[in-house]
Amino acid sequence: MDQGAPRRAGGGCGGLNTAEETVEQSGASRVRLTFRPDNVETRVPSGVTLFDAASWNGIAIDSTCGGHGTCKKCKVRVIAGNVPVSSIDARALTPEEIRAGWRLACRAAATGDVEVEVPPLQTRPKAATVGVGRQVILRPGVQKRYLELDEPTLEDQVPDIERVLAAMDDLELSVSLGLARTLGRTLRSSGFRVTAVIVDEELIDVEPGDTTAHRHALAFDLGTTTVVANLLDLDTGQPVAVRSMLNRQQPFGADVISRISATMMDEGALDQLRTKAHETLAELTAEVCEAAGIPPEQVYEIAICGNVTMTQLALGIDPEPLSMAPFVITARSLPPAKAADFGVLVHPRAPAVVFPALGAYVGGDIVAGLLATGLTRDKRVRLFIDVGTNSEIALGSSERVVSTAAPAGPAFEAASIRCGMRAADGAIEGVKIDGDEMSLVVIGDATPVGMCGSGLVDAVAELVKVGLIDHSGKFIADEEAAVRFPLLATRLVKIDKERVFVLHWRDGDGDPAHGVFLSQRDVRELQFAKASISTGWTILAKELGIELADIQQVLLAGSFGSYLTPMSAIRIGLVPRMAPTRIISAGNVAGEGAKMVALSVRERAAAQAILEEVEYVELSGRADFNDAFIDLLKFPG
Amino acid sequence: MDQGAPRRAGGGCGGLNTAEETVEQSGASRVRLTFRPDNVETRVPSGVTLFDAASWNGIAIDSTCGGHGTCKKCKVRVIAGNVPVSSIDARALTPEEIRAGWRLACRAAATGDVEVEVPPLQTRPKAATVGVGRQVILRPGVQKRYLELDEPTLEDQVPDIERVLAAMDDLELSVSLGLARTLGRTLRSSGFRVTAVIVDEELIDVEPGDTTAHRHALAFDLGTTTVVANLLDLDTGQPVAVRSMLNRQQPFGADVISRISATMMDEGALDQLRTKAHETLAELTAEVCEAAGIPPEQVYEIAICGNVTMTQLALGIDPEPLSMAPFVITARSLPPAKAADFGVLVHPRAPAVVFPALGAYVGGDIVAGLLATGLTRDKRVRLFIDVGTNSEIALGSSERVVSTAAPAGPAFEAASIRCGMRAADGAIEGVKIDGDEMSLVVIGDATPVGMCGSGLVDAVAELVKVGLIDHSGKFIADEEAAVRFPLLATRLVKIDKERVFVLHWRDGDGDPAHGVFLSQRDVRELQFAKASISTGWTILAKELGIELADIQQVLLAGSFGSYLTPMSAIRIGLVPRMAPTRIISAGNVAGEGAKMVALSVRERAAAQAILEEVEYVELSGRADFNDAFIDLLKFPG
Repeated sequence: MDQGAPRRAGGGCGGLNTAEETVEQSGASRVRLTFRPDNVETRVPSGVTLFDAASWNGIAIDSTCGGHGTCKKCKVRVIAGNVPVSSIDARALTPEEIRAGWRLACRAAATGDVEVEVPPLQTRPKAATVGVGRQVILRPGVQKRYLELDEPTLEDQVPDIERVLAAMDDLELSVSLGLARTLGRTLRSSGFRVTAVIVDEELIDVEPGDTTAHRHALAFDLGTTTVVANLLDLDTGQPVAVRSMLNRQQPFGADVISRISATMMDEGALDQLRTKAHETLAELTAEVCEAAGIPPEQVYEIAICGNVTMTQLALGIDPEPLSMAPFVITARSLPPAKAADFGVLVHPRAPAVVFPALGAYVGGDIVAGLLATGLTRDKRVRLFIDVGTNSEIALGSSERVVSTAAPAGPAFEAASIRCGMRAADGAIEGVKIDGDEMSLVVIGDATPVGMCGSGLVDAVAELVKVGLIDHSGKFIADEEAAVRFPLLATRLVKIDKERVFVLHWRDGDGDPAHGVFLSQRDVRELQFAKASISTGWTILAKELGIELADIQQVLLAGSFGSYLTPMSAIRIGLVPRMAPTRIISAGNVAGEGAKMVALSVRERAAAQAILEEVEYVELSGRADFNDAFIDLLKFPG
Repeated sequence: MDQGAPRRAGGGCGGLNTAEETVEQSGASRVRLTFRPDNVETRVPSGVTLFDAASWNGIAIDSTCGGHGTCKKCKVRVIAGNVPVSSIDARALTPEEIRAGWRLACRAAATGDVEVEVPPLQTRPKAATVGVGRQVILRPGVQKRYLELDEPTLEDQVPDIERVLAAMDDLELSVSLGLARTLGRTLRSSGFRVTAVIVDEELIDVEPGDTTAHRHALAFDLGTTTVVANLLDLDTGQPVAVRSMLNRQQPFGADVISRISATMMDEGALDQLRTKAHETLAELTAEVCEAAGIPPEQVYEIAICGNVTMTQLALGIDPEPLSMAPFVITARSLPPAKAADFGVLVHPRAPAVVFPALGAYVGGDIVAGLLATGLTRDKRVRLFIDVGTNSEIALGSSERVVSTAAPAGPAFEAASIRCGMRAADGAIEGVKIDGDEMSLVVIGDATPVGMCGSGLVDAVAELVKVGLIDHSGKFIADEEAAVRFPLLATRLVKIDKERVFVLHWRDGDGDPAHGVFLSQRDVRELQFAKASISTGWTILAKELGIELADIQQVLLAGSFGSYLTPMSAIRIGLVPRMAPTRIISAGNVAGEGAKMVALSVRERAAAQAILEEVEYVELSGRADFNDAFIDLLKFPG
C-alpha cells in the first residue's frame, strides 16, 4: 500500500515540462496548491500527488481504486502551473483533454505551485466526517474487484490461484490456505465470474458473481467499562449500526489493575478474561449486523482500539508486566491479528487493525484519540486528557507532542466514592450552588440515589467555590458554616464520626446515611485524582518548555470527560485556568479514531506515525513528581 | 534468506584489489576455483562466494550462521588468486591473518581464478549424504541464538518483542501473536537469558535458557499407499528415527482417483480424508519422537512431499478439478502452511515446507525425486520413472528437462491382478525361467499366496523371453506349448474359460484356482500399463529431440521401482533397451528430497527452481499419443 510517499509522474509529453525539469525549476521543498471551486489553499512537500494533497485537506475527488492509478476516475484540470503528463494519463485521457490541462490526480505529482479545478463528484461522496471535525477521504483497506476469467483448457492449465492473481497483476497479493480450500469450487460454480476481496495486500476471498457493492468493516472501542461497535459501510463511509454494552469482564474488577491481579492470582483467569472479551465483542457484532441486515461474512475487516491491558487480555497476552515497574509492554505494534483472534465472527479471514500503544498506560485507545483529535497535526498547542482511573494526558502541537499517564485512582469511576454510581437513572450528574441555595441535576429526572463522576466534580467544585470546602480540601468548621451558610450548614453532618455533606435526604427520613452525600474522604479521593492529573500536565508543560497560558484548547475525552462541566473542571484544578469555552468535550474520541482507520489506510499510517510523533514521559521514575503533586493537591484559589 | 545470488564483497584494503577492479580484470563470466586439501576443482559464475561454491560442491566449511556473515567461523586461506577484503573481514580477522590470505568464505566473492585452503572442521561435520549420492551442506531453515538481554528498567522500557529483536538486528524477523502471548513470562522467568528459535524469517519461539544444542525437523513422504517419517537432527544432518505406515486413507480407495471420487460422492468425505491423513502423520510423529527420545516441541519445522491429490487432501483443499480435464491444480506453490495444518503436533508454530507441483499428475513427490536425483543439474541425459498407478516420467539433463504423467492403471499396485497382493510375506517377487524349468523368489521364504508388482513383471518378462507369451501378449496355443515346453505347458490351464499360467499349485490341490496364477487378462493389464509409460518416454524423447540411445541412465523411483529387475523391465519394454547396469533402482527418492529441503534452505530454493527448469508435457490432448501407444502395446522382439 502506498502510504503517502511522494510519487514521481511518468514520461513527459510535448509542450509540457517533465517532472524532472519541474523539480529543478522549483528548487523549493514545499509547493502551494489551490483547489477550485472550494478555494482551499495548502502547502505540501514537492512531489506529493494532487490526489493525496486533496485527501489530506478533505477535498473529495472521484476514485474507486483509492489512488492506485487503476480506476482512472480522479480527473482534475490544472488551471495554473505545470503538472507533467504521466504514462497513465496518456492512456486514460484524450490528447484534447491533456492539452486542456486534465490529469489523473493520483499520478499528478505537484512539483511547483499549482491551481487545480476539481470537478463535481460523479459518484457518491467518498468522504466522511469523523473524529473531532476531521474529514476522512475514503480509502479503506478493503477493496473489491469483479473479474471475468478465461476458463481453463488443456492448452491453458494455469493453476487456479495463479489465474486469479494474473487478472490483478498490478497488485502483489498473498493468499492463505483457507482461500485455497474453496477457490476451485467457487471458480467452477460461478463460471469463472467472481469478485476478488482484497484487504491490504492479501486476497482474503473470491466470491461468486459480482459482489462489489457490498463492503463493510467494524470499528470497536474496547473499553474497560464499555465496549462500542460501529458497523461501517465502506462505500459511503457511514455507520449503518452502532451498539454498546458493558464489558463482560466486569466481574473480574472495575479497573485494569484488578483484572491484571485476577490473572496473577488464578492460572485460569487469563483464559476466562479473554473469553469474556470475546463474548462481548461477538455479541455486539451479532447485534450490529442484525440491526443493519448485513451478513457477518460481508464484514471484511475490523479496527479495534483499547488500552494496553484490554488489548492484551482480549488477545490472551499475559498482562502481568504491565502492572509493576518498570511497566513494560509486549510490543508497541503487536503482531498481525485476525478478527477471529478477538472472537469476532465476521469473514473468517478478516484482519484486525489493532491500534499501537506508546506505553503501558498510554495505549491504543489514546493513540486513537490523538488521531481523532488531530493533536499531532494541528498548529495550536492543545491539552488532551482522557479522564479515568488511569488518566492519559498529551500536550503539544504539530511541532512536538509529549504524553504521560497519571494514576488517578478510582474517584472518577465512582467506585471508591461512598455514594458513587454509574451515570444511570437516579445519578446526580450536576450540582449548582448559588449563595446559600443548592440545586441538583439528576439523570432521568428521577429521585437521586447516588452520584456519578461529573456530579462528584460539580459538588466539590461548587462547595469550593462558595467556600464550604477550603483550599486544603477540608469542610470548614461547623461553627463557621452555620454563620456563613445557615441553610447549607444543616447538610453538614456526621456519619460514623466522618463529616459528610448531604446532597439529598431520603423522603421522610432524617438519617443522612440513607440519603446521597459527599464525604470528607470522597473529597480527598477526588483531590488526589485531580492532583495526579494536574501534576501530569504540569510536568508535560515543563518538558515542552511552555507556560500553561500557552495552551489554547483542552480536549476532555472519554465518556466521563464529555459530561464534565468545564467550569467545575477549572475550579477543582483538573485543567489549567482558562476561558471555559476553550475546554471541549471531545466525546468518545477513541471510537472515532477506530472508525477513521477502518475508513482509510492513510489514517492507519497516521496512527502508526503517532508512535514516532509523540514522546512518552514516564512519571514513576521522576524526582519532580512528588514535589509537583504536593503543590497541586490543594484546590486553586 | 539468501538463495544463492552472487554477493559482492565490501570495501577493499591496501595491497589487494577491490572487488570492482577484479571484475574488470577478469572479464570472464565464470571463474575456476580449487579447494585444498580435497583438490576439488569447479567453475562457478564470477561473483559467487567461496562459501557458496564450497557448499555446492559438498565441501564442508565451518559455519554456524549458514553464510550470513554473523558467526565469523568460515575462515579459509587464499593460496593463489585475488580475493578482496570485505568490511567484515577487517573486523573478524587480524591484519596478520588478512596479509596471510585468510578471508571469511561467506563474504569472499570469487571474481577471478582462486585456489583456496579449507582448514579442517572445528565443529562436527556440517554435511550429510542424502538423495542419490548427493551431499548436502547443512543450512537448515531452523536457526537458534542464545541471547543475554538487559533487564528493563524505568529508564529502559523497551517493549519485550522489540528488546528481543534488537538483539538480532542483523535479521529481519516477523513475530506471531502466539509468541507474544508467552514471551513476557519466558523472559522474566529466565532472567532475560533466552534462546531465540528462528525459522526462515520468523522468530517462532523464545525458550528459557540456552537450548541451542537441540534442533530437529521432520521430513515426510506422504504417499498414497505408504507414509514415511524421518526425524532429523539439524546439527548433524543425520536421521535419528525413521518410521513408516500405511496411509489411513486406504479405506477410501487404493489410488488417488478413487479417493477424489469419494469426495465427489459424499460431502463429508473431504473432511474425513483430511482427518485420516492427519492421524497418519500424527501417529508417525509421535512414534519417531518417542523412538528418538525427542520432545515434539523441539521439532521446529517439517518438510512434506506428496502427489498433488495427497497434498491437497491433507490440507483440506477440494481435489475435484484434479480428476477431470483440463486437470487444473490449485497452485504450483501452495500458500504458506504450518505443521499444524497437516495435523502434525510438533512445535505449535513450526512451519511446513510443502514441495511445489508441476501439474495435476507431476506433483511434489516428483519434484522431490528430481531434486534427490539431481536430474536438472546433471550433464548426463537421464530418464526418471516413478512407476505406479499414475506413473510420472521426466527426461533430460542440466540442459533441458521435460516431464509428463502416464495413466498406467493399477497393474503395478496389483489391485486389478487376479492373484495380486502387496509386497508382503508370501508374495512372489521374482520369477526365473531357464529352458523348461521355473524357480520363484517369495518374500519371507514363505509358501506363495500371491504375487506383487515385481513378481508380475518378472513372470511376464520370463514368459516372453522363452516364448510362452508371444510379442502380441497372448499365451501361445496349448498344442505349440506342449511341444516346446513339455513341463511348463502343464501349468497352462483354464479357469472359467480364461487361460492362466499357474506359478504355484496349492499343496495337494489340483485346482488351479486355489494356487497362484497369471491370467491372460493380467498380462493385458501389464501390457497397457507399460505401453502407457513407454509412450510417455517416447513422446518426451521426441519433445527433447533426442534418440532413445542417447539416454545414459534410467532411474526407477518409488518403492515399486526399487524391486524391479532391470532385465525384466527391459524385456517387457517398460524402459528403453540398454545395458541393465544403466538401470538404477533409486529407492524412495521423494523421501530423500524431503530430507534435503529440511537440511538446507539452498535445496529448498533448488526445489522451487525445478518449477522453472522442468517443462510439463500434457499427454491427454496430444494427437500422437494414441499412435505411439498402439505401436508400443506389443512386447519388444
